[in-house]
Amino acid sequence: MDLLLRNVRPLGATAVDVLVRGGRIAAIGAGLAAVPGVAEEEGGGALLLPGLVEAHTHLDKTNWGRPWYVNAVGPRLEDRIANERLWRAESGHDGGAQSLRLAREFLALGTTRLRTHVDIDTDAGLKHLHGVLATREALREQMEIQVVAFPQSGLLVRPGTAQLLEEALKLGADVLGGLDPLAIDGDAAASLDLLFGLALRHGNPLDIHLHEGGEDGARTLEAILARTGASGMQGRVAISHCFCLGDVAPARRAGLLERMARLQVAVITTGTASRPVPPVMECLAGGVAVAAGNDGIRDAWTPYGHPDMLERAMLVGLRNNLRRDDEIALVLDAVTHAGARVCGFDDYGLEVGCRADLVLVRAQGIAEAVVARPRRQLVVSNGKIVARNGALQVVPAAHADYDYP
Amino acid sequence: MDLLLRNVRPLGATAVDVLVRGGRIAAIGAGLAAVPGVAEEEGGGALLLPGLVEAHTHLDKTNWGRPWYVNAVGPRLEDRIANERLWRAESGHDGGAQSLRLAREFLALGTTRLRTHVDIDTDAGLKHLHGVLATREALREQMEIQVVAFPQSGLLVRPGTAQLLEEALKLGADVLGGLDPLAIDGDAAASLDLLFGLALRHGNPLDIHLHEGGEDGARTLEAILARTGASGMQGRVAISHCFCLGDVAPARRAGLLERMARLQVAVITTGTASRPVPPVMECLAGGVAVAAGNDGIRDAWTPYGHPDMLERAMLVGLRNNLRRDDEIALVLDAVTHAGARVCGFDDYGLEVGCRADLVLVRAQGIAEAVVARPRRQLVVSNGKIVARNGALQVVPAAHADYDYP
Repeated sequence: MDLLLRNVRPLGATAVDVLVRGGRIAAIGAGLAAVPGVAEEEGGGALLLPGLVEAHTHLDKTNWGRPWYVNAVGPRLEDRIANERLWRAESGHDGGAQSLRLAREFLALGTTRLRTHVDIDTDAGLKHLHGVLATREALREQMEIQVVAFPQSGLLVRPGTAQLLEEALKLGADVLGGLDPLAIDGDAAASLDLLFGLALRHGNPLDIHLHEGGEDGARTLEAILARTGASGMQGRVAISHCFCLGDVAPARRAGLLERMARLQVAVITTGTASRPVPPVMECLAGGVAVAAGNDGIRDAWTPYGHPDMLERAMLVGLRNNLRRDDEIALVLDAVTHAGARVCGFDDYGLEVGCRADLVLVRAQGIAEAVVARPRRQLVVSNGKIVARNGALQVVPAAHADYDYP
Repeated sequence: MDLLLRNVRPLGATAVDVLVRGGRIAAIGAGLAAVPGVAEEEGGGALLLPGLVEAHTHLDKTNWGRPWYVNAVGPRLEDRIANERLWRAESGHDGGAQSLRLAREFLALGTTRLRTHVDIDTDAGLKHLHGVLATREALREQMEIQVVAFPQSGLLVRPGTAQLLEEALKLGADVLGGLDPLAIDGDAAASLDLLFGLALRHGNPLDIHLHEGGEDGARTLEAILARTGASGMQGRVAISHCFCLGDVAPARRAGLLERMARLQVAVITTGTASRPVPPVMECLAGGVAVAAGNDGIRDAWTPYGHPDMLERAMLVGLRNNLRRDDEIALVLDAVTHAGARVCGFDDYGLEVGCRADLVLVRAQGIAEAVVARPRRQLVVSNGKIVARNGALQVVPAAHADYDYP
């Protein structure tokens, strides 16, 4: 199952060959010698990207591939939360089947590592978690999936949720999630104390959804930063959305970014077009790492989203008005190297020794790949060819031990 | 060359058949009788949309299909204008060849009517116009292309431009274009007096690029509205971008929208993600028509954009946070019926007697078509099949009388 990939251009550089052995990149260079017994694949001068990284999605929520969900919800956040909980309970929606369906689509489009938040609440309990853990297991050979135990309906505000989160971590969730400690839980200090306490007790990193805008959001962010430093969790906390960074004054933002950089707290952005967002170039200039994600895809919240991280990179670029080739390279970085660093995916990249996660597209360079989002000519994950021209090759379509409805 | 299209769902309604004769929709209904000599096409239950409408692009600027243009420009508007003028003059870029190339791609993706702004300035003269007029002529049977004579480098600020615009109108440009009478020309009143004078003298509608933001933009908009009323040009003026509507206070916006509605002045939006934009729902609620367009596509200004009006509808929907199915239907309207009304394209729609411009996609309804942007199964334009599965059928690739480089 080893592979010699001929004539590909890593991130647009001169064409080389790439030898994959035992799931790793074993050699990179021009005119590599053929290896007896190793299959060769002609790249045809395609652009070679490392496997794409989705840093923020909700696989378990998606309606992907099911009859269309007619959205007539909103406009308040609380309406959407309540509507979704009800719909998921009543519609026969299954987080296991759906997460597998969407993860396979991500893989077909070149995403080989992915962080997904799984709804945990006192109505559904750990039902959705079990489904997503089954998906993670089913795709273990093909994809690295990180599971975030996520209190979508609130933490303090729904007693019993903390216990469920602990249970989720014991069952194998990789990351502890949080949600708007002020806007949803109503008491940022108490909510964050509880959350950080759980994270420390179980040794998991944190990824906190922070939709809170303006000065409210900035104060919550400060409360998160204070606890990050006090608990020694530097480098293990990410803030998803972090909209407040987009709508505080520049000097206030600069101060927050400076503290985030010092504490190695990362931003995970979706490049939401309809509200203020963290300005990517300012974050990077301030030393704050930026990863990117779709957020939910075609679910009860939103009909938008596509399991294509090149499209997400484009949307982040559009949102931040990044038009220059050197700027667009930075949004590609958010869905590749920086995404992997923020999530803590190991052995990532196009270097010898890295896990062989490779994507080929027909594009002259990075900027064209992002704006044109070409067909994925070939996707190699963990050393094996998993998709050609957008179509999956041999990838499990079910997990044997999961009880699909 | 007539056609009986079987089993298609107009805008998601119950499946019907559509008879096309002499380039028009001749009948719509369930189980239409076969017509001797008329070819039948099985739609397979596909969603039927009317031909898509691009209301604001710049075909002549595009670099589509050429070696990648490395963008290292900006950030000021004036930098971009000067850079582009120079690049176009020196790079061998040809507005005729390029406009035809991009127009064909639009057609393959279902756009059958299109308004394009053509750069006219005292350096290039009417060179780009000649190229786009050749494209309009080459595709006359397949596409309705409206040409806007557009002073990209300014009007007052570059003496001689007004004469070139007049010449352009005499040569057959359909619409007179304008550009930031205050920010570029430096004197909104004098610039608009000249522009409206030209429009009145030649009897052409106006389409004015207004990038000016905030109160500056609002005052320019008022100056445009005053001249629209005074010159009797109600219903013949469109404002492209009109960013100022996105960043004035709500009461101020409401007042402007009220005047625009009264004067039937339309907004043409691109849904720009990185700056304030006219809020689509408020515009519509206020009685102001909204059309949509890509603006430039893969040119010296921006690498972004795709000749797919379903993608543009998605971007406008994302920018305006339109998630409900009924809201998304309104963004489809902006790239179909409303787009046609704003531009003044006649005989448009899915009614008997309309020009047969038809697009088939695999989608359950309008919202899915917009968010998923499925492959175009079939495109019929002016009564003829012009594309299948995204690939053009017989469509001219050159205009016999144009001197391509």
